[in-house]
Amino acid sequence: MSTPTEMRAAVAEQFGSTVNVKEIDLPTPGPFQALVKLHASGVCHTDLHAVEGDWPVKPQPPFVPGHEGVGEIVELGPGEHSVEVGDMVGNAWLWSACGECEFCRTGRETYCKQAQYGGYTVNGSFGQYMLVDTRYAPRIPKGADPVEIAPILCAGVTVYKGLKETGTKPGEFMVISGIGGLGHLAVQYGVAMGMRVIAVDIADDKLELAKELGAEFAVNAATTDPGEAIQEFTGGGAHGILVTAVHTDAFGQAIAMCRSNGTIVFVGLPPGDFPAPIFDIVLRGITIKGSLVGTRQDMAEAIDFYARGKVKPHVTACELDDINDVFEDMRNGKIAGRISIKY
Amino acid sequence: MSTPTEMRAAVAEQFGSTVNVKEIDLPTPGPFQALVKLHASGVCHTDLHAVEGDWPVKPQPPFVPGHEGVGEIVELGPGEHSVEVGDMVGNAWLWSACGECEFCRTGRETYCKQAQYGGYTVNGSFGQYMLVDTRYAPRIPKGADPVEIAPILCAGVTVYKGLKETGTKPGEFMVISGIGGLGHLAVQYGVAMGMRVIAVDIADDKLELAKELGAEFAVNAATTDPGEAIQEFTGGGAHGILVTAVHTDAFGQAIAMCRSNGTIVFVGLPPGDFPAPIFDIVLRGITIKGSLVGTRQDMAEAIDFYARGKVKPHVTACELDDINDVFEDMRNGKIAGRISIKY
Amino acid sequence: MSTPTEMRAAVAEQFGSTVNVKEIDLPTPGPFQALVKLHASGVCHTDLHAVEGDWPVKPQPPFVPGHEGVGEIVELGPGEHSVEVGDMVGNAWLWSACGECEFCRTGRETYCKQAQYGGYTVNGSFGQYMLVDTRYAPRIPKGADPVEIAPILCAGVTVYKGLKETGTKPGEFMVISGIGGLGHLAVQYGVAMGMRVIAVDIADDKLELAKELGAEFAVNAATTDPGEAIQEFTGGGAHGILVTAVHTDAFGQAIAMCRSNGTIVFVGLPPGDFPAPIFDIVLRGITIKGSLVGTRQDMAEAIDFYARGKVKPHVTACELDDINDVFEDMRNGKIAGRISIKY
Amino acid sequence: MSTPTEMRAAVAEQFGSTVNVKEIDLPTPGPFQALVKLHASGVCHTDLHAVEGDWPVKPQPPFVPGHEGVGEIVELGPGEHSVEVGDMVGNAWLWSACGECEFCRTGRETYCKQAQYGGYTVNGSFGQYMLVDTRYAPRIPKGADPVEIAPILCAGVTVYKGLKETGTKPGEFMVISGIGGLGHLAVQYGVAMGMRVIAVDIADDKLELAKELGAEFAVNAATTDPGEAIQEFTGGGAHGILVTAVHTDAFGQAIAMCRSNGTIVFVGLPPGDFPAPIFDIVLRGITIKGSLVGTRQDMAEAIDFYARGKVKPHVTACELDDINDVFEDMRNGKIAGRISIKY
Repeated sequence: MSTPTEMRAAVAEQFGSTVNVKEIDLPTPGPFQALVKLHASGVCHTDLHAVEGDWPVKPQPPFVPGHEGVGEIVELGPGEHSVEVGDMVGNAWLWSACGECEFCRTGRETYCKQAQYGGYTVNGSFGQYMLVDTRYAPRIPKGADPVEIAPILCAGVTVYKGLKETGTKPGEFMVISGIGGLGHLAVQYGVAMGMRVIAVDIADDKLELAKELGAEFAVNAATTDPGEAIQEFTGGGAHGILVTAVHTDAFGQAIAMCRSNGTIVFVGLPPGDFPAPIFDIVLRGITIKGSLVGTRQDMAEAIDFYARGKVKPHVTACELDDINDVFEDMRNGKIAGRISIKY
Repeated sequence: MSTPTEMRAAVAEQFGSTVNVKEIDLPTPGPFQALVKLHASGVCHTDLHAVEGDWPVKPQPPFVPGHEGVGEIVELGPGEHSVEVGDMVGNAWLWSACGECEFCRTGRETYCKQAQYGGYTVNGSFGQYMLVDTRYAPRIPKGADPVEIAPILCAGVTVYKGLKETGTKPGEFMVISGIGGLGHLAVQYGVAMGMRVIAVDIADDKLELAKELGAEFAVNAATTDPGEAIQEFTGGGAHGILVTAVHTDAFGQAIAMCRSNGTIVFVGLPPGDFPAPIFDIVLRGITIKGSLVGTRQDMAEAIDFYARGKVKPHVTACELDDINDVFEDMRNGKIAGRISIKY
Repeated sequence: MSTPTEMRAAVAEQFGSTVNVKEIDLPTPGPFQALVKLHASGVCHTDLHAVEGDWPVKPQPPFVPGHEGVGEIVELGPGEHSVEVGDMVGNAWLWSACGECEFCRTGRETYCKQAQYGGYTVNGSFGQYMLVDTRYAPRIPKGADPVEIAPILCAGVTVYKGLKETGTKPGEFMVISGIGGLGHLAVQYGVAMGMRVIAVDIADDKLELAKELGAEFAVNAATTDPGEAIQEFTGGGAHGILVTAVHTDAFGQAIAMCRSNGTIVFVGLPPGDFPAPIFDIVLRGITIKGSLVGTRQDMAEAIDFYARGKVKPHVTACELDDINDVFEDMRNGKIAGRISIKY
Repeated sequence: MSTPTEMRAAVAEQFGSTVNVKEIDLPTPGPFQALVKLHASGVCHTDLHAVEGDWPVKPQPPFVPGHEGVGEIVELGPGEHSVEVGDMVGNAWLWSACGECEFCRTGRETYCKQAQYGGYTVNGSFGQYMLVDTRYAPRIPKGADPVEIAPILCAGVTVYKGLKETGTKPGEFMVISGIGGLGHLAVQYGVAMGMRVIAVDIADDKLELAKELGAEFAVNAATTDPGEAIQEFTGGGAHGILVTAVHTDAFGQAIAMCRSNGTIVFVGLPPGDFPAPIFDIVLRGITIKGSLVGTRQDMAEAIDFYARGKVKPHVTACELDDINDVFEDMRNGKIAGRISIKY
């Protein structure tokens, strides 16, 4: 089978609520790049932000969103590669980085000023083919289900890295605040990392799910004060708190749940300011951190947990042509787990 | 010379703006306690908060403020002691702790729930004599000038610990925001720790002082945008930022000065909420921490830097009877460096 | 039931191969001490070293060995205590420490120069009653089986701390070298901490046990080169290696198994020198560490893993009068798992 | 001035005691490479090992040694570069690495299995021109003296990284064992990093130099027991020990000087085994580490300390034609400080 010259892809032609699914030219891989025939691509809230153009730093239309793509390499660009045609790889939010700056030199490449972002500054995985930088593309283990593994590439690595950034050790208490697409993976990673996981959400079915996935304790923040409940259950507060869903009151709640000297990590990107109570932060020696997706190393580790069966995303498959409906459901908070486009 | 039965002390009899300097009974040292004849005591903003009773958790009048006391042991209470009559010791904000809880067991005793605070939950150093817990009282090196070393016991250890909490390494950039009683010590500690220190204040004379003390760069935030100036000077922002003076705009300024993946530490205890821009904190992977005074180990280290001549507080001596004037000057921001009562 | 004035205890009257089980006076608890009626006591190799007096620093006969004791407080000495009569507590190798030195101040109390050692510098748990320092005695969770929990107090905490000291993270490879009394606990702790555990021993039944307890891979070092086998299985060597059984060739084997930049921790106390290949240690950036039992915090954590059912010692119960036979079996390497005296 | 087609270089034609200085062809820069016209090159003990071929892993003759080269870029190979013609750069022992493996991904590229080594696996700086990989070549600050900065590129970065690896904090005691080419730089880096430096050597003039460079205390190990002297001076041993000169008795001496829970780092590559006393290592919780040169980040930092005037190598300049004499002096231990070839 030879590679075609055109492909179907979802294109954001201007900022707005929808994308156009249409035929576009196939791209040609440059140095260090590979052309990948996609088998699946997860859909992430960030794709919606890209399409709507509502973040301070915006992509440049027209562009193809998508940064949880999984597929097979069909062609390699010039230069030496550490992968081969036929290998399964993915794209990711961190599509490439410069490899030379202080952040790249020290294992913190997500903060590289010259990084490219998949489906944002370069075309992404909402099409039949995509380009990847082979130095940065995640390796997909043989035999993995593309639809199922796709969400690991952003949601998975994001929460896995976030959990690590809390510094919470095996045997310590870890609150996962928000048990959606990110949170249901965070519960599983936390359990696999030996943490004592506590789930907080406002939907009982999500809390039930969290318990099935290994959470020791679950709090419905709509009916119970989560700070009080967690202080009591843990005897002094949680050592780590991962905030996956950012409401205005998340800051205050997270601090109320937190053990003295504990760490709160945010992984979402909400606009606006949140009220931080410095007095309490100082008096109890609390740390607040932002964490952005993950490096190649974090990705390899996050995938390894999946490959060893420790983490299993809850995924619903859809078609590329369904993408605008998926965005609409996302806006309305109607999505349970994650959605993957199956090609 | 025998010990008297009464002493002069500044007593906060009810919350308000002044204390009464009067004769009160000498206390008797209990187990693990020593009676100390004071030679000097620093005056700290916290003493003003104690007297005014404007913090959420309040002391119980009548009480004697003061937690930067330096004096000589004149009597030991029952039990074994690691100090002797004649030794010079101090009191501190962390007057004692339980010694058994998870925080005490792990070198984080400042977060002990049963800690006692000098001049707040137990009587302090604004009197001719005070009690200390000999297990927790800082050891004062032989030959140290009591008036000069006093501010190390709170201001010094607080900024030294805060600098450590930023995780900034020798050769990296460290911003000291606010060059007052705390900040002028922070500049000196930062320099002695091999950091490249940058000073930010709104008074030119304080910035001049910072440069004399070793700061490489100084920014007057009243006339220059400190974020821009520091981004340019450092080529990407400071690795660590110590905020000693907390204004409402300190949060935003600190984030603007900060390098990606940098750390901002607050050591003050301002009431109210500060606006935290989560988007920026996540995108640049910034850490925000509170740090409260220091442990006995931090104190021993902070004193050792002083004893080796690396840090020299700028101190003005006063009399115990001047204390209400000192408070008034403090309220009006009229104090340069630190004030120590000389007994 | 009133407390008697005499008790049966195993007394080492001079260095040699046996102890005398006989009646001795009950001790009286001093300040911070409690009298504990023992329910069980583990027997550790260190007790044999104590009795034989073959370590450079020796105990002073006559003395009662034993530092894995578990029992009920029947009397409290003078002073304030954080425990009550009726509480279950243990003794440990770290019987007490000074609470004030740099090691005690920083959560490293096992290196306190004034520490007392249970069954070594103070009488231990090989008797019907023992004294403990209530500030340092491990708290035993309600309902725990004394015979089963006893080995956690030394063997358990030692390997748990050793695992922590390797710095190995969840998902990384951890070799446990030697699957005896310490090693079979180390496998369980490693698994509970999310590590990928590999067992090395020279007995197939011990390797079988390790696999049942969750080891992913097991190597019989008598028949297979462990360095080669582990390099291949792990794709580059193990991140952490815990050496519980120290032979002369342990050093070389451990380095051969180790990943570049990995860490090898020793927890045993063998006499003599071991050959260290510095060239290889430098070229591959390897770390070698010694780790001695654990602090109160490590102990509380190690016990918590047990209490949550993550770790279960394999214990055989015996009588106090069997102690010399147990020592003889120990000398002959005939003991599987651990032995606990049941009172 | 156009680039010639031939150049003079010191070529190791077979393993032995000398190199041939002769005309060879100029190399052509490949992708990511640059041709550099050398201004200076330091001479390192490793060059002698390369020429003599006495390490387990050997270079392949004929080759040009040298990995402390400093020069100007005269030609760039294909592809994008982050440097320009005219920029000053260096070569280093870590000439390049793969950029993709777990070590490269995590800021530990010195342990990359595909790394190339300057003057060992690729031709080095003992010639008028050399190639560098522009992604890995150290940037030389404008105005730096090539002869003087050259030793920073290996000796400097090696000891700077070694000091960091000890984990010694500002204000803690750091022993530099061996005050030669590496050690005299280590003293300066240690002082600039805020450490309290102690020098150990067997030559009084080197100890005098160490004191001039800021060491607080110096011990002649030929006449004084360094363990005892340092235990007494430091009140319990040094927190960190950097062993630059590896004799058979270095292991025992270093452990004797070490504080409980301290860290000893080796940076040399001696053949053979050293006797490690495991009992003492465990009882006092000591860490022993190997450290190999440094990463690009370590290099940038090491150079920055030099550029800020904190570290000044003691260098004697020589001609390329003197190289065999320099090797002979090196073998006879006749070199003080470091030697740089000036082109």
